[in-house]
Amino acid sequence: MKKRLTLHLILFCFISLTLFSQNDLQENYNLMPWPKEVIEIDAAFIINPDIKISIQGTKKKGRVYNASINFLRRLTNRTGIFINEGFPLINDKEASIQIKFDRISTLSLQDDESYSLSIKEKKILISAPTDIGALYALQTLLQLTDYDSNNYYFHGLNINDTPRFVWRGLMIDVARHFQPVHVIKRNLDAMASVKLNVFHWHLTDDQGFRVESKVYPKLQELSSDGLYYTQEQIKEVVNYASSIGIRVIPEFDVPGHASAILTAYPELGSKKEYAYAIERYAGVFDPTLDPTNDKTYLFLKNLFTEIAPLFPDEYFHIGGDENEGKHWDKNLAIQKFKKQHDLKTNHDLQTYFNIKLEEILSNLGKKLMGWDEIMTPNMPTTAVIHSWRGENEGMSKGGSLISAAKKGYQTVLSNGYYIDRMLSVKHHYTVDPIGDVQLTTDERKRILGGEATMWSELVTPLTIDSRIWPRTAAIAERFWSEKEINDIDNMLIRLEDVSNKLEELGITHIRNKEVILRNISNHKDNEALQSLSNLCEPLKVYSRNKGGTEYKTYSPFTLFADACTADAPDAMRFNNITNKLEEESSIIEIKKHLEIWSNNYRNLQPILHNPNVAPLRALSQNLSNTSKILLKAINTKKITQNDLNELKASLHILEEAIIDVELAIVDSLERIIKFCEINYLIK
Amino acid sequence: MKKRLTLHLILFCFISLTLFSQNDLQENYNLMPWPKEVIEIDAAFIINPDIKISIQGTKKKGRVYNASINFLRRLTNRTGIFINEGFPLINDKEASIQIKFDRISTLSLQDDESYSLSIKEKKILISAPTDIGALYALQTLLQLTDYDSNNYYFHGLNINDTPRFVWRGLMIDVARHFQPVHVIKRNLDAMASVKLNVFHWHLTDDQGFRVESKVYPKLQELSSDGLYYTQEQIKEVVNYASSIGIRVIPEFDVPGHASAILTAYPELGSKKEYAYAIERYAGVFDPTLDPTNDKTYLFLKNLFTEIAPLFPDEYFHIGGDENEGKHWDKNLAIQKFKKQHDLKTNHDLQTYFNIKLEEILSNLGKKLMGWDEIMTPNMPTTAVIHSWRGENEGMSKGGSLISAAKKGYQTVLSNGYYIDRMLSVKHHYTVDPIGDVQLTTDERKRILGGEATMWSELVTPLTIDSRIWPRTAAIAERFWSEKEINDIDNMLIRLEDVSNKLEELGITHIRNKEVILRNISNHKDNEALQSLSNLCEPLKVYSRNKGGTEYKTYSPFTLFADACTADAPDAMRFNNITNKLEEESSIIEIKKHLEIWSNNYRNLQPILHNPNVAPLRALSQNLSNTSKILLKAINTKKITQNDLNELKASLHILEEAIIDVELAIVDSLERIIKFCEINYLIK
Repeated sequence: MKKRLTLHLILFCFISLTLFSQNDLQENYNLMPWPKEVIEIDAAFIINPDIKISIQGTKKKGRVYNASINFLRRLTNRTGIFINEGFPLINDKEASIQIKFDRISTLSLQDDESYSLSIKEKKILISAPTDIGALYALQTLLQLTDYDSNNYYFHGLNINDTPRFVWRGLMIDVARHFQPVHVIKRNLDAMASVKLNVFHWHLTDDQGFRVESKVYPKLQELSSDGLYYTQEQIKEVVNYASSIGIRVIPEFDVPGHASAILTAYPELGSKKEYAYAIERYAGVFDPTLDPTNDKTYLFLKNLFTEIAPLFPDEYFHIGGDENEGKHWDKNLAIQKFKKQHDLKTNHDLQTYFNIKLEEILSNLGKKLMGWDEIMTPNMPTTAVIHSWRGENEGMSKGGSLISAAKKGYQTVLSNGYYIDRMLSVKHHYTVDPIGDVQLTTDERKRILGGEATMWSELVTPLTIDSRIWPRTAAIAERFWSEKEINDIDNMLIRLEDVSNKLEELGITHIRNKEVILRNISNHKDNEALQSLSNLCEPLKVYSRNKGGTEYKTYSPFTLFADACTADAPDAMRFNNITNKLEEESSIIEIKKHLEIWSNNYRNLQPILHNPNVAPLRALSQNLSNTSKILLKAINTKKITQNDLNELKASLHILEEAIIDVELAIVDSLERIIKFCEINYLIK
Repeated sequence: MKKRLTLHLILFCFISLTLFSQNDLQENYNLMPWPKEVIEIDAAFIINPDIKISIQGTKKKGRVYNASINFLRRLTNRTGIFINEGFPLINDKEASIQIKFDRISTLSLQDDESYSLSIKEKKILISAPTDIGALYALQTLLQLTDYDSNNYYFHGLNINDTPRFVWRGLMIDVARHFQPVHVIKRNLDAMASVKLNVFHWHLTDDQGFRVESKVYPKLQELSSDGLYYTQEQIKEVVNYASSIGIRVIPEFDVPGHASAILTAYPELGSKKEYAYAIERYAGVFDPTLDPTNDKTYLFLKNLFTEIAPLFPDEYFHIGGDENEGKHWDKNLAIQKFKKQHDLKTNHDLQTYFNIKLEEILSNLGKKLMGWDEIMTPNMPTTAVIHSWRGENEGMSKGGSLISAAKKGYQTVLSNGYYIDRMLSVKHHYTVDPIGDVQLTTDERKRILGGEATMWSELVTPLTIDSRIWPRTAAIAERFWSEKEINDIDNMLIRLEDVSNKLEELGITHIRNKEVILRNISNHKDNEALQSLSNLCEPLKVYSRNKGGTEYKTYSPFTLFADACTADAPDAMRFNNITNKLEEESSIIEIKKHLEIWSNNYRNLQPILHNPNVAPLRALSQNLSNTSKILLKAINTKKITQNDLNELKASLHILEEAIIDVELAIVDSLERIIKFCEINYLIK
């Protein structure tokens, strides 16, 4: 970034900046989420072996102490500089980085998360009301490492920062595919690096129950395939999250999504004599807890009483989504119960169930949170509404967030942040939780924030990082930064840097793509395969898993589609250029791409006999062919009708999804073809 | 491999094979370690969605059940085939893979590890006396997956297999650099894949105490920097290892290597008023337990009594190495004690200490094992001698193994298998534990086997896999296979395949190299850097860490040297070719390499201003220059004296180690230069 930097060094210090100049500054620094206020200073702090961190005040080794060690390790590993002092000092006035904070955060929603960071030539000052603010300041500082031919350095800045929303979350579903502790931990590290502060842990679903229960051990013994967290591991994760400033919200999804629970305890099910079994497919299934059975509430009370203490956070998620009540409809006793209790619909029955749960949780000191289906007329406003449904589910755009807030519920938005739908980062980034809606102060306060949701039907530990990152970093900015920070092009530039730096936290989104391609190609030369994978994207919005019947939990997730990601990088670059076909520089860039692709089919030959590469034949062949013809047309500024016909036929093939991916440059190719037709056609 | 396969299909079945034909077969199958007996059958088992595993007998879900699941997952992920049945069946006669075993192994040294594996067109039969044998058979089968343009398949074979040595180990030092549970687990998986059966866990050293003690909590509180295993985690690892057939031997290194212990409990030290502190450097240090203090034995007795039950194995390693007794010499009370007890040397004093420990461990049902320094005249033969010192330490080649066996000790060899010395796999592969020594049956029986040792002064979780693998797979073959299986060229071919397949177990030796290079190049195009890294090797035999003062535990280990590995792949290929300079095909290959390298300096330009790339300038420039001149000479079959002088000057620079690496093709370049001088010089 340094080249663009010098242009801005003349900015005055200590002036309050307009939003215009904030946008301007965004071109200089790869900060994400963008802070509330950034002021440049004409100075640079050279990173050198004598760098030292001092923490003012407490001698206790808490969050800031650990964060300082991590900061030093990441800095030394990133820069290669041998830092002499590997541990923070306490109250050392000479140390070059000074950290000051007033109190230890309790990680409650009311806690102050703000911080200030001042970088001068010889001194860096961090100041915050809570230790969490100091942690954020260190993350911001790390994002600012820059280099020239002599040094790594931090540019002089004054930053004052505080988040827009208090609830900035990532949900990870560990039921559909289990994610071991180390996978969770590295994602917590990544979350912390972009100032996300809520880890929502979707622990149970039809495909597995993932928590050790000592009271109901059949849950893990019969319903997890041996893939579950021990209570010690839960504590380990919760403690780790807390140590880096992240709250953990557990989710136990009831009364639907209950196949796993009912595999262990079928007597709690709504359908007698039903062969409950761990579900191997993805989809919405019928097994449902029986809300008319007292034993159900006894079970949940005992279970939650056992489990709740593992999760110190006040909020407790009970799911509550996608219960169609089919088994309720088929159970005469349940039908009778509904009549007796004047519960007209299954929704009413579920509300009855939810209110019971709310009491259980309330007695445990917990606030009930649930997916937006729980927002029924009788549901008390002590519940927290997790808004997820939207246009895709036949609801209004933006989901139920605003109406929940207006009705008096605290609420969190996930509609628009379903990263498992494999949509572009641009899509998620432009979803604002509030938008232009006018709210009262109280209503606004009830909108806590949002959560990206990583449902795991199609991800494994090998691929999950590439589905979460880097898009979630942009979502994190949406939750933290001011609404007006919304320049997509600039976001994409900063995102690339953030994405690269996630590697140092062990995030595998880059490295594991190559692992998959090496496996597919049986470790033969796979440059042509790489090239295709940088142009293709996995099918979107659940169309990969057709009708919920294609993939089982133990199907292979090492396929070409698993190596591909949303926002296919070469496609993004190419699509950007083809928007400016009239510019000569665009044509030059386009030709570079076409030259590479025109050789794709030839270069793929050595591995085309491999069973997993063979299905790419048509894609590769037509891409090469299209590229060759377009190249010739552009070079000669001529195209025949025959060539044009061939292009259109090829494009027709390229439009078709194959092996669960789609070519992400079809529109661009169509644009170029159209351009050639208009400008170069020989009549 | 399949092309070479058809040539051998005419081999007769069911004949006992000579060693000659075993060597011959090694060209067809990427098995490692090579089995005792392999017989080809003219058949192939096509891997298809209907593949099913059935286990005969037990309904209990034990090792074989879990191994079968893992087998199915790895097979589906490797081949992309959607296998319908994701779990093994019990007593299903129709299943295509039938597994039969007689009893559950207790993982003792006496247990039978043999197995037989028969692959026919429609059926695969696995039979073994113990479940461990069945596990090995599944690993062998996985190594046999092959493919043609239509299918993945297993070639028809009959295999009868049993190991040469009963102790086939890998030691990992987690004291110098802590390795989290998931790093250990993935390495256990890799060990199992090459039939290693002992994980020796070096848990304490000067740089850290890595086990939670509830009796002496200061050990982890003051002496681990927070990096230690909880007792639950220890159990988790031990259980996991056992589930895949691996014994775990803990090592608590005493009385030397004790800085960490003495940081927590300085009163046990041999030097009063000494400022014991966790050691940050690598080397041999003075802090030593006081062997004359009763409290030392009470401490060790209590500690071992607490810790020993976590490790069910009979063997318990007490280190005992590299104690120079400097602090003993300076302590008058200790001097006096020696006289009183007629202990003439510090060795005698250490023997006194060891015998005390032997009693403590014996009472806990454990056999004492120690590094070869413990083999002193008075040491009882109940101790197990771990032979590590050799020529590098001024001892005889092959270390103390044979003499230990002759003296009546059980013994294990590590001399020759120090993989942290970064020597070539060829070196380790050619070290045979016994060689041509004649032994009695009893002596031979006492030679249990060997262990590769991964000392971790210079490795972190990011790099450790690339230091262990793939070389340890070849060492595993040395421990398992017959002595006569020793064809290096063939081993290298099989090793490459094994190495690639380690990726599917999560081993990061390939992917993390790229991570480091991306970091060094700040995610700019790094092809030229990659090319250099495939030619350079980290400095060998501890010369990287000069005098033990260069690297601290928290120094950066993300340097160019950390991206490089032993057996630099391009260097190995090149060095192979330059041995046959007289062949025209060699010259063609050499030219291809030289062409690439001649552009290295030009291609490196865009990232040369990066502080971590800049030190490679001279290497790159001289490599490019040398390559250009040689190319010209080879192409024109002429070379001037001037060019020759320039080549020699460049070579002089290329010989020099830089940033802790050495160019691994210097000898080859010298050979080519000599060749040009003899054949092409214009006089």
